Amino acid sequence: MFESAELGHKISKETWKKEIPGLREALLDAQLDLLQSRKFPVIILVAGVDCAGKGETVNILNEWMDPRHIETHALRDLTDEELERPQMWRYWRVLPPQGKIGIFIGTWYSAPLIENVYGDIKNAELDQRLERISRFEKMLCDEGALILKFWLHLSQDEQKKRLKHLEKDPKTRWRVTDTDWQHYKLYDKFRKVSERMLRSTSTPESPWIIVEGTDPRYRYLTIGKAVLNGLRQRLDTPEPPRHEEPIPPIMPTIDDLLILRTLDLSNKIKKADYENELEKYQGKLNLLTRHQNFKKLSVVVVFEGNDAAGKGGSIRRITQALDARQYRVIPVAAPTEEERVQPYMWRFWRNIPRKGRFAIFDRSWYGRVLVERVEGFCAHTDWMRAYGEINDFEEQMVRNHTVVVKFWLSISREEQLRRFKEREKIGFKRFKITDEDWRNRDRWDDYELAACDMIDRTSTEIAPWTLVEANDKCFARIKVLKTLCERIEEALGKNGH
Amino acid sequence: MFESAELGHKISKETWKKEIPGLREALLDAQLDLLQSRKFPVIILVAGVDCAGKGETVNILNEWMDPRHIETHALRDLTDEELERPQMWRYWRVLPPQGKIGIFIGTWYSAPLIENVYGDIKNAELDQRLERISRFEKMLCDEGALILKFWLHLSQDEQKKRLKHLEKDPKTRWRVTDTDWQHYKLYDKFRKVSERMLRSTSTPESPWIIVEGTDPRYRYLTIGKAVLNGLRQRLDTPEPPRHEEPIPPIMPTIDDLLILRTLDLSNKIKKADYENELEKYQGKLNLLTRHQNFKKLSVVVVFEGNDAAGKGGSIRRITQALDARQYRVIPVAAPTEEERVQPYMWRFWRNIPRKGRFAIFDRSWYGRVLVERVEGFCAHTDWMRAYGEINDFEEQMVRNHTVVVKFWLSISREEQLRRFKEREKIGFKRFKITDEDWRNRDRWDDYELAACDMIDRTSTEIAPWTLVEANDKCFARIKVLKTLCERIEEALGKNGH
Repeated sequence: MFESAELGHKISKETWKKEIPGLREALLDAQLDLLQSRKFPVIILVAGVDCAGKGETVNILNEWMDPRHIETHALRDLTDEELERPQMWRYWRVLPPQGKIGIFIGTWYSAPLIENVYGDIKNAELDQRLERISRFEKMLCDEGALILKFWLHLSQDEQKKRLKHLEKDPKTRWRVTDTDWQHYKLYDKFRKVSERMLRSTSTPESPWIIVEGTDPRYRYLTIGKAVLNGLRQRLDTPEPPRHEEPIPPIMPTIDDLLILRTLDLSNKIKKADYENELEKYQGKLNLLTRHQNFKKLSVVVVFEGNDAAGKGGSIRRITQALDARQYRVIPVAAPTEEERVQPYMWRFWRNIPRKGRFAIFDRSWYGRVLVERVEGFCAHTDWMRAYGEINDFEEQMVRNHTVVVKFWLSISREEQLRRFKEREKIGFKRFKITDEDWRNRDRWDDYELAACDMIDRTSTEIAPWTLVEANDKCFARIKVLKTLCERIEEALGKNGH
Repeated sequence: MFESAELGHKISKETWKKEIPGLREALLDAQLDLLQSRKFPVIILVAGVDCAGKGETVNILNEWMDPRHIETHALRDLTDEELERPQMWRYWRVLPPQGKIGIFIGTWYSAPLIENVYGDIKNAELDQRLERISRFEKMLCDEGALILKFWLHLSQDEQKKRLKHLEKDPKTRWRVTDTDWQHYKLYDKFRKVSERMLRSTSTPESPWIIVEGTDPRYRYLTIGKAVLNGLRQRLDTPEPPRHEEPIPPIMPTIDDLLILRTLDLSNKIKKADYENELEKYQGKLNLLTRHQNFKKLSVVVVFEGNDAAGKGGSIRRITQALDARQYRVIPVAAPTEEERVQPYMWRFWRNIPRKGRFAIFDRSWYGRVLVERVEGFCAHTDWMRAYGEINDFEEQMVRNHTVVVKFWLSISREEQLRRFKEREKIGFKRFKITDEDWRNRDRWDDYELAACDMIDRTSTEIAPWTLVEANDKCFARIKVLKTLCERIEEALGKNGH
């Protein structure tokens, strides 16, 4: 794999002088087109062998283009705010918006590579991590990002020469650390693992470009041209029209056996029992959050369901049991301007809680496969791929010891009508009923089918859906509280000892 | 000051039962009006004596209102990301947007109070910190925020009783810490300092409300009513019309002696000298960033100046000398949706760099007193108060060991015309010239006067303006680099030993 990058590629001074002015002008031009079109974000990864010139290469790119619209990220030690979130959070929070360029040195590849070389993770786990990275990059590409991945290579001899050379000069001596020499001694191991990594993460959408690092002129020119190519290709290709495809009708099932229709909505709880159970489970929930191991967890609660199914009321029965200092309720509305120029999942990533905290979502990332699907707000392919992206997102949270609890609150058509009418009458609840609610109601069957589809595809062992019969509000609230307690208890048991 | 809060206020169960349902409905109603109007943010501070029921009070407020539109912040230990920024950064980053409510326990008052009681800061410094807090709150009020400050008080006997009571019950024992008893022993000292603090920070816009903490019903009802009052008063008062006042014409000076007109724009540097000096100062700048103490600093560079004065070119001469990993260039454009629902300075606070990093602003917070003033985009009072807010902002950065370097790049009217015409001709620079540029040019005199006014009012000893004669681009670039080096060198000297 690295053979072509050990041939001793060189660019003469003359060629360099001839090529560079045109390349720089073209790069700047492409960058401005990108900025004005705001069509897509550009993510450039610069990875590779130590001392192969990653830093210098990134500096050159910043010099050739307009640094005002580039952000360079060299993410090394995790800050304590990052340590409390899933591994990929630190990258999500600095993703470039549409129209801008983000350059990463010290990428999401560094940790798995080093950990495998040093024997901290086995090959099976390496493959798993790489597979996750591939899915992450695929999601970025699907969201429109242009990803350019460069691997700077040096032969072992060349690396040694470079290290010695840097060490000799007092001006550059500081750059050579013990770690560099340690890595050098492990050269063969690094080479082997890198090869495996590059092979398995070179995809049609974001292939690796391997560049010999020995000659700076060769390195800069190759990368500069590749960046230009990538930019121009995307800028000059007319976007395939989106959203114009006909919305595929939601297929009705061939029988009436839908998961949501199997719920017994007549489930009820007596007033006196309700008061008792409410006190019991709120007390229990409160105690659980004081458990000595609770600070090692975080809890993400998702509420979805029919309009007027009682999400707000259920949420308040949870927050009543908690200390206001440890929860945040996130009502999901239309995305803001800053959120619209990022991948769909970005606005949920930014709300992942710290350890010891709750984030309670009143509607959530499932909007994509519910309202956006039914109303045709996004393309067919976009909501189809959302299932996978959602599962990835939840899996990453769970791996970070987040308890993900998802509730679908279900009411009957008749009960919804009754509540709509009641809400229109009662004073301070008036805000809750809008024209949109009435419109959504007309598409009851489509929403029901979309919800059943969603439950089938995203109820996983690690983040199952809990379906809540909510015609009786009290019954629903108790089921919600009880389930939440059980899930947290279970997690405390697992992580407790 | 606390006498009225030691009278043994009590609310009977009957009064409570009679009052609460109406209060809750009215609070919820007010909160919804706030949410729909999006007119202003609400900031509620809950401070006071230990064990006076701050946490419970905040929980009640969350219970009575809709917790989906409240965020509660109990900021205690600083995260490492917060440690690297000015003290107030942690509060800025969680300010509630317009239409929402932010509740703070553990407020900006906690640290100065405790530090003074324990003798870490003297009274003079306490007063200084309180003065800064007052200015911060005044800024928030000027920006439209409603601030409600509650101080929960307990007499010494009552505090002792409460501590003992909590300790007896195994369910609440965890709440009493050694610190609580230690604070209890210092009761008199705390009382004295608190009184001083409350007195000096009770302003007409945001007065303290002292509440006796002994009886929970009294406490909750008092605070609930005060919140309702505050909300209703602001919601029901029609906004005074803004922006409609005539824009006061910018007064011409009575002679021609303007600071910007005293610059010798014919300053030039020879090509050969330029190359030498450029190399010299870029090399020096690079070395300075490798100084062992540089990681204790951060650098904020501001570029303002006439259109086409060469800000971009100067910025690139700086970034060329730096490692791309350590700087960010922030081009200041129109605020985003998320920025528009926050105080004007919010979008600059969010870009304050970490230690060891540069943030280079291409245009800045000075937009308020330049383009916004001249074009009448904001009210007279808004840009007038901006001078003070800007000085506060810069002072806080400097105190946090940020080197604040501000450049005004000045060119003549004729030189600007030449550059505009040249830019219209040259290919990839075309983007840089817009209709707006031509319009601004027509108001040259107004901009010049506004700039001179700005320089007079914001060139401080700790963050001086450097005026750069920029008719000759090379001369300007060298002056910028040289000044930047000097300022960093000076700071390294100061903090170095």
